[in-house]
Amino acid sequence: MFTGLSAFPLTPLVKGEIDEKAFVALIEALAAAGVNSIGALGSTGSYAYLTREQRFAATRLAVSAAAGVPVMTSIGSVNAEEILRLADDAQKAGVSGLLLAPLCYQKLTAEEVFRLYERVCGEISVPLCIYDNPATSGFDFTDELLVALSALPGMGSIKLGYIPADPAEASARVTALKSQVAEGVTIGISGDAQSAAGLLAGCDVWYSVLGGLFPDYCLRLTQAALRGDVEETRRLNDALEPLWGFFRRYGSLRVIATVAELTGRVAAPCLPFPLQTLVGEEREVLGQVCRPVQA
Amino acid sequence: MFTGLSAFPLTPLVKGEIDEKAFVALIEALAAAGVNSIGALGSTGSYAYLTREQRFAATRLAVSAAAGVPVMTSIGSVNAEEILRLADDAQKAGVSGLLLAPLCYQKLTAEEVFRLYERVCGEISVPLCIYDNPATSGFDFTDELLVALSALPGMGSIKLGYIPADPAEASARVTALKSQVAEGVTIGISGDAQSAAGLLAGCDVWYSVLGGLFPDYCLRLTQAALRGDVEETRRLNDALEPLWGFFRRYGSLRVIATVAELTGRVAAPCLPFPLQTLVGEEREVLGQVCRPVQA
Repeated sequence: MFTGLSAFPLTPLVKGEIDEKAFVALIEALAAAGVNSIGALGSTGSYAYLTREQRFAATRLAVSAAAGVPVMTSIGSVNAEEILRLADDAQKAGVSGLLLAPLCYQKLTAEEVFRLYERVCGEISVPLCIYDNPATSGFDFTDELLVALSALPGMGSIKLGYIPADPAEASARVTALKSQVAEGVTIGISGDAQSAAGLLAGCDVWYSVLGGLFPDYCLRLTQAALRGDVEETRRLNDALEPLWGFFRRYGSLRVIATVAELTGRVAAPCLPFPLQTLVGEEREVLGQVCRPVQA
Repeated sequence: MFTGLSAFPLTPLVKGEIDEKAFVALIEALAAAGVNSIGALGSTGSYAYLTREQRFAATRLAVSAAAGVPVMTSIGSVNAEEILRLADDAQKAGVSGLLLAPLCYQKLTAEEVFRLYERVCGEISVPLCIYDNPATSGFDFTDELLVALSALPGMGSIKLGYIPADPAEASARVTALKSQVAEGVTIGISGDAQSAAGLLAGCDVWYSVLGGLFPDYCLRLTQAALRGDVEETRRLNDALEPLWGFFRRYGSLRVIATVAELTGRVAAPCLPFPLQTLVGEEREVLGQVCRPVQA
């Protein structure tokens, strides 16, 4: 399941409660588009802001609405006991995979992170994806640690948070990782602005924020990259450059949530308080900037 | 209540559950020593790792064991609705103050942080202390934002996470802040290694990790600093320099938890999984290094 386009939808909220109708519609659109997997309750799905009960309810809805497309859900928490409870819940709800970032309050050491994944892997029965995103989790993985973790039983994929901007260096990092990680563990790219580069550098899967709202365009880009069509990949990605500028400036969540509000896919405001979507002129400009993906 | 020595005790855990007997004994020792306030469930009290139910139970125990010494407790969460529930719980448990760090999953903007504190201040009836600690919360306060927040109703204190190492610059920052914050809002220092410098620079209160385990020594240091006895303050602080070295290298929580285990105040391991206390030679050296405070 950890190849191709993995689409990460929003979990739209209304006053702190999940807007179930809008959430289900987002998932159904992803299934209809034929994405390879759905990362319900990723960072874009605001998992970190939801209660255990909300996460369980949303996961059940997602699995049902996905109509057979594999769903994975994030079990991240700073509380290790809670991680195990969330893993249990998610598996009961029928997920095909789990996603885990090592959320920090106190900065974790590499050894502590290894112990955490080791314990979680010992207690789950669906594959796990390592969620590498220092900006949200507060932890920086080394490639050495990623390789060590890949050998744990049940490991399915690594969602990279960063690749070098230089294409040769990016390719070297991905090639080196792929040669060292345990067999069957795929390498994925996240951080949408660098994802075309990541796929061209050899990543197997795009863990995609934009794909959670605009799966058709992102599928075209992913498939072009994976079949080695550099020109078409660049053409599709270049058209998104103004949008990536917004992602870099405001964070992908605020931007995609604003686009979802602007296009009527969710009611405004849809983010967990106090997170705000864009306002004023920036909101208007964004409306124009995201036109290519709507075509 | 936000002056003098505010002692932050550990919340010792046994397999994820609070060791109530050991926790109560820590609080009773602080009350007996005559600390000015107790920051139960601060970062040192592992609040971020506990469930709402555990936080409520621990707060009730702390207020009872504190025997009249004002207790404050942290209501931090990335989930704003949960913050309000935690504030309610803490007030029902009888706290005299609340402590709030703007915990981030997605990085917060200054405007979002302002909205968060504004909303919380509108719904609480005991004073609030702003908890500035970028390393754990993921948010960097500017002095401009701290000053704006200080004017919110019910604001009681600002717990600074950082002061410049240069004494003149430290003094300039604290003096400037004190002249700008709303009347009655005190300025406190945290990060034990810089706390003597913070008090000498004009801070009103030491929010102290070490004071949670060794209140007598920390009271002597605080009182020396607050009466302007620079020489005695430096003498007491210099004796702790080897201990501060451990704080800098391993983080204050791992170090103070190791010391508590070594001195039999808590059972080992006392930290929330996967956080580890020190082992091997470092643990032995630490045992020697913390002797001055035990005298």
